[in-house]
Amino acid sequence: MKTPITVLGLGAMGTALARAFLAAGHPTTVWNRTPGRSPELDDLGAGRAKTVADAIAVSPLVVVCLLDDASVRTTLEPAATELSGRTLVNLTNGTPLQARRAAEWAAQQGAEYLDGGIMAVPSMIGGPAAFVLYSGSPVAFERYQTDLAALARPQYVGSDAGLAALHDLALLSAMYGMFGGAEHALALISTEKISPTAFTGELLVPWLTAMMASLPGIANDLEYGAAPGAAGSNLAMQAAGFVNLIDASEEHGVDPLLLTPIRDLLDRAVAAGHGDEDLGAMVRLLLKTAG
Amino acid sequence: MKTPITVLGLGAMGTALARAFLAAGHPTTVWNRTPGRSPELDDLGAGRAKTVADAIAVSPLVVVCLLDDASVRTTLEPAATELSGRTLVNLTNGTPLQARRAAEWAAQQGAEYLDGGIMAVPSMIGGPAAFVLYSGSPVAFERYQTDLAALARPQYVGSDAGLAALHDLALLSAMYGMFGGAEHALALISTEKISPTAFTGELLVPWLTAMMASLPGIANDLEYGAAPGAAGSNLAMQAAGFVNLIDASEEHGVDPLLLTPIRDLLDRAVAAGHGDEDLGAMVRLLLKTAG
Ligand SMILES: NC(=O)c1ccc[n+]([C@@H]2O[C@H](COP(=O)([O-])OP(=O)(O)OC[C@H]3O[C@@H](n4cnc5c(N)ncnc54)[C@H](OP(=O)(O)O)[C@@H]3O)[C@@H](O)[C@H]2O)c1
Ligand SMILES: NC(=O)c1ccc[n+]([C@@H]2O[C@H](COP(=O)([O-])OP(=O)(O)OC[C@H]3O[C@@H](n4cnc5c(N)ncnc54)[C@H](OP(=O)(O)O)[C@@H]3O)[C@@H](O)[C@H]2O)c1
Repeated sequence: MKTPITVLGLGAMGTALARAFLAAGHPTTVWNRTPGRSPELDDLGAGRAKTVADAIAVSPLVVVCLLDDASVRTTLEPAATELSGRTLVNLTNGTPLQARRAAEWAAQQGAEYLDGGIMAVPSMIGGPAAFVLYSGSPVAFERYQTDLAALARPQYVGSDAGLAALHDLALLSAMYGMFGGAEHALALISTEKISPTAFTGELLVPWLTAMMASLPGIANDLEYGAAPGAAGSNLAMQAAGFVNLIDASEEHGVDPLLLTPIRDLLDRAVAAGHGDEDLGAMVRLLLKTAG
Repeated sequence: MKTPITVLGLGAMGTALARAFLAAGHPTTVWNRTPGRSPELDDLGAGRAKTVADAIAVSPLVVVCLLDDASVRTTLEPAATELSGRTLVNLTNGTPLQARRAAEWAAQQGAEYLDGGIMAVPSMIGGPAAFVLYSGSPVAFERYQTDLAALARPQYVGSDAGLAALHDLALLSAMYGMFGGAEHALALISTEKISPTAFTGELLVPWLTAMMASLPGIANDLEYGAAPGAAGSNLAMQAAGFVNLIDASEEHGVDPLLLTPIRDLLDRAVAAGHGDEDLGAMVRLLLKTAG
């Protein structure tokens, strides 16, 4: 028999996780604060537990996917004694600090703990492009990685439970940056008779795909230092051009609030003498100006 | 004989443009404010003009690529009378308003005018992933598009001279958003012993590539309205998770300045009752809150 698995939380993501475990043939028990969510899971063979303690009692592997760290604590604490001898996999989005504290708490209950970051939207679960970052108990990862692969490609990033969250949040900030930029772009072209779908398919996606080729160069600069004369797009030129982005946004009635901090950081980089460098200088400034 | 072409401006980009015309066999004349820049062009057969007027006099097609609109005006105005009967292609980054004014000014000098936005870094000029947006005189585009294709795939977006700049600036804002997010991501992982190049190659680029698949959905929402229940990642959930991005950044000593406006906009969207919607709501807010 395949490992019985419990899923706590049937939001958009928890529901997708439960479906994927069911599709892979795992006896799957679900619980959700508001009962009766995602009724389609019943037809797919999920068992519904009345309480969190009941849900935990029936499976050696317990997967939690709730809104945030506070909801995880509220949910698990009353059922803490049930966790002994089980493996808790927490796929709720959180910080490295929250993950390290959860790992400590789980150890106190006698449970193995894995923290995870789901790098996918719900519709991608079970598909080829999704992956899930894991950190924490190497024993638990070793034992359950094949079962967890039903969700998405598992990628283990270290025994420090906080590392999955750090990688996850780094990737999420990159995604939000990209989405923020795209939102501004779509707002700008919406002010003239330009089709958003044609613009996105024919220009935006090919352009961002092409520009992504610059990212390894920034990473290389950070890790090994910039190659001399590598700045084909120096920051001084970029700062001069950035003025146009703000001016045109204002002329077209688009709030530039997502762009102004990028301009400010560029200007600060140039003022600090990095005008002939590339974007690696921006990363160094983000680390220096904090606190 | 191939069309003789003049290139004004030998910065990183102007130099790449001149090289591409030379490689395609065009008699190419160059001028730069500071003489002697990019001496390698001489070996490739470029002619050097002493003055802007001399440079314009020898070619029917004049390509300008300087720092900004002000430098274009300073450069062209003293040589204005030479422009009569020629085609001026301005590939300097600028706003739609600047492009419309330049088109008017060029018409007064008796020149055909094309405004252009180069969607490439210098090393991509002449390669397959680059493209250049053009708007303005349809006659000029018809006549010279084959010659201009030596630089990159030419894409004509309309006879209103401002449209290339609008598309260009929209694409640039998307790029800067993506780069800003990636800069924050690289700063975050740099605070632990994680290799920036491994992170970028194995996680960041595949992740952003996968997430780009969400962009057509946002465009679709804007153009046709959201499909009911389409929000697999609702804004309320995103706002809850965003707190972790800011908290973890501060805990790791990374300045969150590039992320805070995204958080503010998300919070504002949720407060305005869009918590169950998707990112299309963010675009509508950018248009509404301006002014
Ligand atoms: N959706 C995505 O695209 C995505 C992608 C990657 C990671 N994630 C992460 O996955 C997690 C869940 O996201 P989701 O999309 O499933 O969110 P969601 O659709 O908004 O669902 C939230 C879930 O949390 C539960 N919950 C909220 N507060 C609770 C509390 N105090 N006690 C107990 N349960 C509580 C809700 O239960 P009720 O039904 O009772 O309200 C519901 O099951 C989040 O941490 C999110 O960051 C989501
Ligand atoms: N590099 C890129 O990645 C890229 C990509 C797309 C578009 N662009 C656009 O292409 C244009 C040029 O960029 P670039 O990378 O070549 O910049 P750059 O390397 O900084 O070169 C700037 C050029 O402008 C000239 N210039 C500056 N002020 C001037 C003035 N007042 N009068 C006359 N000439 C002046 C400089 O001449 P001196 O040698 O005398 O200083 C130099 O030729 C910009 O509008 C930029 O936004 C660049």
